[in-house]
Amino acid sequence: MEENKNNFTELSELGEFLLINKLTKNNKIKNNSTKKAIGDDGAVIEYEDNYQTVITNDVLVEGIHFDFSYCPLKYVGYKSVVVNLSDIYAMNAKPEQILVSFAVSNRFSVEALEELYQGIYMACDEYGVDLIGGDTTSSKIGMFLSITAIGKVKKDNQVYRNTAKETDLICVSGDLGAAYLGLQVLEREMKINKDTNVEPEWNDKEYLIQRQLKPEARRDIIELLEKNYIVPTSMIDISDGLSSEILHLCTQSKTGALIYEERLPIAEITRKTAMEMELVPSTAAMNGGEDYELLFTVKLSDYEKLKELEQISVIGHITHQSEGINIIATDGTQVPITAQGWNALL
Amino acid sequence: MEENKNNFTELSELGEFLLINKLTKNNKIKNNSTKKAIGDDGAVIEYEDNYQTVITNDVLVEGIHFDFSYCPLKYVGYKSVVVNLSDIYAMNAKPEQILVSFAVSNRFSVEALEELYQGIYMACDEYGVDLIGGDTTSSKIGMFLSITAIGKVKKDNQVYRNTAKETDLICVSGDLGAAYLGLQVLEREMKINKDTNVEPEWNDKEYLIQRQLKPEARRDIIELLEKNYIVPTSMIDISDGLSSEILHLCTQSKTGALIYEERLPIAEITRKTAMEMELVPSTAAMNGGEDYELLFTVKLSDYEKLKELEQISVIGHITHQSEGINIIATDGTQVPITAQGWNALL
Repeated sequence: MEENKNNFTELSELGEFLLINKLTKNNKIKNNSTKKAIGDDGAVIEYEDNYQTVITNDVLVEGIHFDFSYCPLKYVGYKSVVVNLSDIYAMNAKPEQILVSFAVSNRFSVEALEELYQGIYMACDEYGVDLIGGDTTSSKIGMFLSITAIGKVKKDNQVYRNTAKETDLICVSGDLGAAYLGLQVLEREMKINKDTNVEPEWNDKEYLIQRQLKPEARRDIIELLEKNYIVPTSMIDISDGLSSEILHLCTQSKTGALIYEERLPIAEITRKTAMEMELVPSTAAMNGGEDYELLFTVKLSDYEKLKELEQISVIGHITHQSEGINIIATDGTQVPITAQGWNALL
Repeated sequence: MEENKNNFTELSELGEFLLINKLTKNNKIKNNSTKKAIGDDGAVIEYEDNYQTVITNDVLVEGIHFDFSYCPLKYVGYKSVVVNLSDIYAMNAKPEQILVSFAVSNRFSVEALEELYQGIYMACDEYGVDLIGGDTTSSKIGMFLSITAIGKVKKDNQVYRNTAKETDLICVSGDLGAAYLGLQVLEREMKINKDTNVEPEWNDKEYLIQRQLKPEARRDIIELLEKNYIVPTSMIDISDGLSSEILHLCTQSKTGALIYEERLPIAEITRKTAMEMELVPSTAAMNGGEDYELLFTVKLSDYEKLKELEQISVIGHITHQSEGINIIATDGTQVPITAQGWNALL
C-alpha cells in the first residue's frame, strides 16, 4: 500500500463527512425494521411486538486479527461483518442491522477504505443486513474496526450457552480445522513468496484459504433446524476453537461433556494438509478456531430428525458436571479437554 | 504508567476471560429491558410494545480523543460512556444499555483497566444504564475504546436532525466553549509542569477542566422539556462545536439559520480565561467542541414556555434555505457560519 500511496487519495483531502458520504453513497435499506439509518445522532430500529433485540460487538485489530500481507481489504471487511453475524445466529436470532466504526492512520487511502466497504456491503447483501451507522476517526498507527450487529428473535426463542442438560447430544455444523490450516498455508506461502519472490500456488488448498479469508456465518443451519422443528437446548459459535467453546458451554451450563475424536467432522483436504504439515488433524479441529461453525446441543429425542441432516455431526453428549469435560481419543483413551484456543489477549 | 509497571499485574497473567470476569464482577442490572447481559454470544434486550430502539457507536482513540498525560483513566471511562449517551438523548430517547469493547497494548496493566472500568461504572450508575457486553482484544500500540449505547423511545417521539422548519427558534442548553478552554488550560499547565516540574495550580479553572475531563450528557434537559410539554422540532448534540452542528442541522433540514453572537451562552470563567489566553470567547463557543450540550429547535409558539427555563438559551431562529446560515456579530455585521469544528480525521 505504501509504495503506491501517491496514486491514491489521501484521507485528509476529504475529511470525515465527505468520506462517510463516499463510503456509504449506495447504502440500501432492506429491512422494514430499519427506521433511521446513517445521518443522525443514532439509528432507529423497530421490531414487531413480541420480538427481542440481540446485540453484539467485536473489535478487530490490524496485526492481531488480520494481516494485509495476505488478506485483501475486501475480505477484511467481509469477514469482520460475518464474525459478528455468526454471534447473532448463535443466539438463534436473525441479524438485520450493523454499525461499522473504524479508526485508521493516514497510511490508508480513500480507495483502500472503499475496498474495505466493498467487502462490508458484500456481506450485507449476502445476509440481508442493513448498514445503519457507525463512527470514523483517525489512529496514529494501524486499522481498528468495531462492528456492532443487531438481530431480532421471537420472545423466548433465543438459545443461550448456559442451558445444556445431561444426556443432550452435542452437535457441530460443517467441518472443523479448515480455517486454521488455511492460515498455516497462507503463512507458509507468504514466507516462500518473500524468500523467493515466486507467486504462491494454492493448488488444491482453495477451500482452506477461503475458510480463513472469507468465512461464512451459518444462517443456513439456523434455518435448517427451524425447518426440521429442532430447537437447540444451548448454542455457541466456534470462533476460538471447539475445545474453548465446549468449555464455555459446559461451564455455563454446569455440566460435563464427552466428545469422540473419531466423530469430529474434518474435511479430507484439511486432514491431508495437516499431515503434510506434520500437524494432528483433530488438534486443528479442536483448537484451530475461526471456523465460525455452530456448536449446539439438542435433546436426545431429536436424534431421529437430526441424523438425516448432512451438514450436522453428532460428536458426543452432555454428562453430569462431576464427570468433567473429556474427549475419547481414537485409541480409546479418555483425555480431559483443555482450552488451547487462540487467546486474544496473549 | 510505564515507570510503575512492575508493581502491577500484566494482562497476560490473566487472559481474556479472567480479565473480563475481574472487570465486570460487580456488574448490576438496573433496567427491566435487559434480558441477558455479559456472558453469551450476544446480549438480549426487550422493550414494551410501541417502543423503538435507538443505537449509536463511538470509537475513542488514545492520542486522538484522550491523552493520559492529563486525563486519568477513570475519566476516560466516564467520558467515553457519556459522549455516547449524549447521542441517545439527542434523539429524545432514554439510554438503558451499553456495550464496551477495547483493544489495548500490554503497556496497560490489569489495574489500569480496572480504573477505566471504575469510570465506566460511575457513568452507568449516574445515568441508570446497564453494561451488557462487549469485546476485549490486544493492540500493538495504544488504547482503543468502542462504546455502543442503546436507548428506547416511544414510537414517533424520536427527534431527528432533518426536521427543523422556518421560523423555529434555535436553542442551546447550558453554556458553550468551556470544554475547549479546559483543554487549553490543561495543555498549558502540563507544558509548564513539564518545563518546571511544578505541580499545576488550577485556581479558579476547575469548572473548565471538569467540562473537558468529565462532561455530562444533558438528560436533565430532555426531562425538563418533557415536563414542560415542549417537543423539539429537531435536535443534535454539540460534540464538534456549535458551528459544525448548526450546519448539519440546517443542511439536513434544508433550511437557513440566523444566530446572534450576543446570545451565545458563555460562562463568566470561560470568557475570562479566553481573554487571558488572547482567544475570542465567542469563537471558543462556536468552534470549541466537546461541550455535549444540546442544540435544538422549537416552534415559535413554545417561546412563552421556554423563556422561563434558565438552562436553555434562545440564540436565533431558522430561516429559508436561500438566506444561508449566518451569525449577527455584536457589531451588527452578518457573517456566514463555516465549520471550523475539530475534524476527527485531520
